[in-house]
Amino acid sequence: MASEKLQVVVTCTAPVNIAVIKYWGKRDEALILPINSSLSVTLHQDQLRTTTTAAISKDFTEDRIWLNGREEAVGQPRLQACLREIRRLARKRRSMEGEGALPLSLSYKVHVASVNNFPTAAGLASSAAGYACLAYTLAQVYGVEGDLSEVARQGSGSACRSLYGGFVEWQMGEQADGKDSIAQQVAPEWHWPELRILVLVVSAEKKQTGSTVGMQTSVETSALLKFRAESVVPARMKEMMRCIKERDFPGFAQLTMKDSNQFHATCLDTFPPISYLNDTSRRIIQLVHCFNTHHGQTKVAYTFDAGPNAVIFTLDDTVAEFVAAVRHSFPPSANGDKFLKGLQVTPAPLSDELKAALTTEPSPGSVQYIIATQVGPGPQVLDDPHVHLLGPDGLPQWAA
Amino acid sequence: MASEKLQVVVTCTAPVNIAVIKYWGKRDEALILPINSSLSVTLHQDQLRTTTTAAISKDFTEDRIWLNGREEAVGQPRLQACLREIRRLARKRRSMEGEGALPLSLSYKVHVASVNNFPTAAGLASSAAGYACLAYTLAQVYGVEGDLSEVARQGSGSACRSLYGGFVEWQMGEQADGKDSIAQQVAPEWHWPELRILVLVVSAEKKQTGSTVGMQTSVETSALLKFRAESVVPARMKEMMRCIKERDFPGFAQLTMKDSNQFHATCLDTFPPISYLNDTSRRIIQLVHCFNTHHGQTKVAYTFDAGPNAVIFTLDDTVAEFVAAVRHSFPPSANGDKFLKGLQVTPAPLSDELKAALTTEPSPGSVQYIIATQVGPGPQVLDDPHVHLLGPDGLPQWAA
Repeated sequence: MASEKLQVVVTCTAPVNIAVIKYWGKRDEALILPINSSLSVTLHQDQLRTTTTAAISKDFTEDRIWLNGREEAVGQPRLQACLREIRRLARKRRSMEGEGALPLSLSYKVHVASVNNFPTAAGLASSAAGYACLAYTLAQVYGVEGDLSEVARQGSGSACRSLYGGFVEWQMGEQADGKDSIAQQVAPEWHWPELRILVLVVSAEKKQTGSTVGMQTSVETSALLKFRAESVVPARMKEMMRCIKERDFPGFAQLTMKDSNQFHATCLDTFPPISYLNDTSRRIIQLVHCFNTHHGQTKVAYTFDAGPNAVIFTLDDTVAEFVAAVRHSFPPSANGDKFLKGLQVTPAPLSDELKAALTTEPSPGSVQYIIATQVGPGPQVLDDPHVHLLGPDGLPQWAA
Repeated sequence: MASEKLQVVVTCTAPVNIAVIKYWGKRDEALILPINSSLSVTLHQDQLRTTTTAAISKDFTEDRIWLNGREEAVGQPRLQACLREIRRLARKRRSMEGEGALPLSLSYKVHVASVNNFPTAAGLASSAAGYACLAYTLAQVYGVEGDLSEVARQGSGSACRSLYGGFVEWQMGEQADGKDSIAQQVAPEWHWPELRILVLVVSAEKKQTGSTVGMQTSVETSALLKFRAESVVPARMKEMMRCIKERDFPGFAQLTMKDSNQFHATCLDTFPPISYLNDTSRRIIQLVHCFNTHHGQTKVAYTFDAGPNAVIFTLDDTVAEFVAAVRHSFPPSANGDKFLKGLQVTPAPLSDELKAALTTEPSPGSVQYIIATQVGPGPQVLDDPHVHLLGPDGLPQWAA
């Protein structure tokens, strides 16, 4: 195949997003329609990103996909849903534009290669970045424009929020077909330049309950989840949008923590119960509350997804002191020099008063490392042909 | 004082109770009126009990109290509430009986000494047994008969449930004065002879949020707690009473676990969040679910109060195997011979199949020891004068 020519080849990157109003539970498993709206912050791709190359060629005999260097089964239902959806949108667009006959390219098979620049062990929502990147890259290849929520969402619900930069709302929608269950930007990435994000990667002993199975069990068994979705989240969505618009950090921070806690509460109310937080997560929660109490104001917030890792929100003037507090409470075990990755943080001393206020016993090695980042833009097309993950033969470069 | 004579001296014991439908949150802080009804199992006093001696004498110059050998401030509001309430009931009774003038004894000061036969470290609700015992003993001294819910409740809410043996309901009541917020027996202690209870004492790193402050914060901040109290608990109370009446163990066990989980969920939904469960508690939860899944039926249940210790319910035919499973998952560190206290349990081997089904990594020393017990009777009067905790001088025997 080395001599053959690729019809189209495109490489894009997409970001990770962290929900501050959590999504947990589907009202439609097939279409991935949520039981409540959610709201997230898009993390900067300088630190955390998925890169995806998609290529089509008349010589490809089948759709194929490689994730982090390993070929995966393309028949996987969610992958199929994305491919089907993007091709449907492409057909729809062509026919609406009155071009009559569909271009040949729509019948071509596609090859996809995708890599994350962060370890799966980081427990970050790699599927959200991954499916957003897939949807965005396929849209370039097939010439689809407009909102891709439906495509990304059918890969992984929260993936639709990774289609935009800044602050992003995923409206739950009301329609049975999910046409109104879409993501949209609430505020752009430059809206709140002082905001900083720290990912605290926690040493976990084992794989947790997967989120797909977990949320299904929660919907079936937790009365608290139903109540939350119907009676708590709508007001919280409004309040969170206000906090973001007004850059009200204490409001934003408190609501973020409360919503994380409530999400984990509904997990615990699930039967059998689901626990994503471990003792280290709880020590981080305590550290944040001690830190805020010491300062007499809410300067730091935590949020946890379906795993023990903490995502911390704070402002640029507080990052250094909080990192010092983390280092004090969770002394790095071995990799002291690489404890802090990403954005540079000037080391700051910890006052004796603050040290005394941090009441938890130091727990060495419980936090593996920190990734410092900020709010970032949505998916990007990379123009440099050298970055393609697929070679001229349509196979991963490294697997030639 | 050694030569003076005590007017009346009485010694009683009272049991610990474990809620299977949890009480969390007051609608009246002063009267200790709960936001929902609760239901508990009374544990046998052969294993866990409070012993209290109360004495009155015309020579006592003030009310005094010794807890576990240490004199405590008698001015403490809750203690005062109990004393005031019992004296009020005594006066009321005498006046109703038309005896006219009140007996002198009502104006006498009281001395109280109380001890638990279990370490405070066991994290069991010692205040419930303690205030039940205080109310019951004072009632003997002052000649008060009838329900003592109001007296015990004003010491510690759940203490009213320790006034009865067997299975006990604390009806939340509706009246503002709390007259209808009383405990009553649902089934006597001999109703379900096969039921066994294991207290798994977990090594905890530090003191948790106290339950008085904790539930106050929960009432103020958790929307899920309000919903639980109003919309979930009423149906659960009915269902739990049915399970007990019919001795439906799987039903009883599942509801017990669900209610424990939901209580801890509302703690997590509190702001700042409260976490009573630690990683060991969660391993115990997982162990129980693995055990039940392995057997294809619910043979064991867990419940957790405001601390990391587990209370396990099971039937006599399952105790030995479950203890073996605990021993396998939490190998005793040093005190191997004293790992199991209380009722005797014949050691049973663990099948290889069950061993394989217990997927959690063994965690040595995380469970300190087990107390095996069963359902037991309510408070008892001890007739033997040798058991009095107060000597003829009205002072603790050991502090002579």
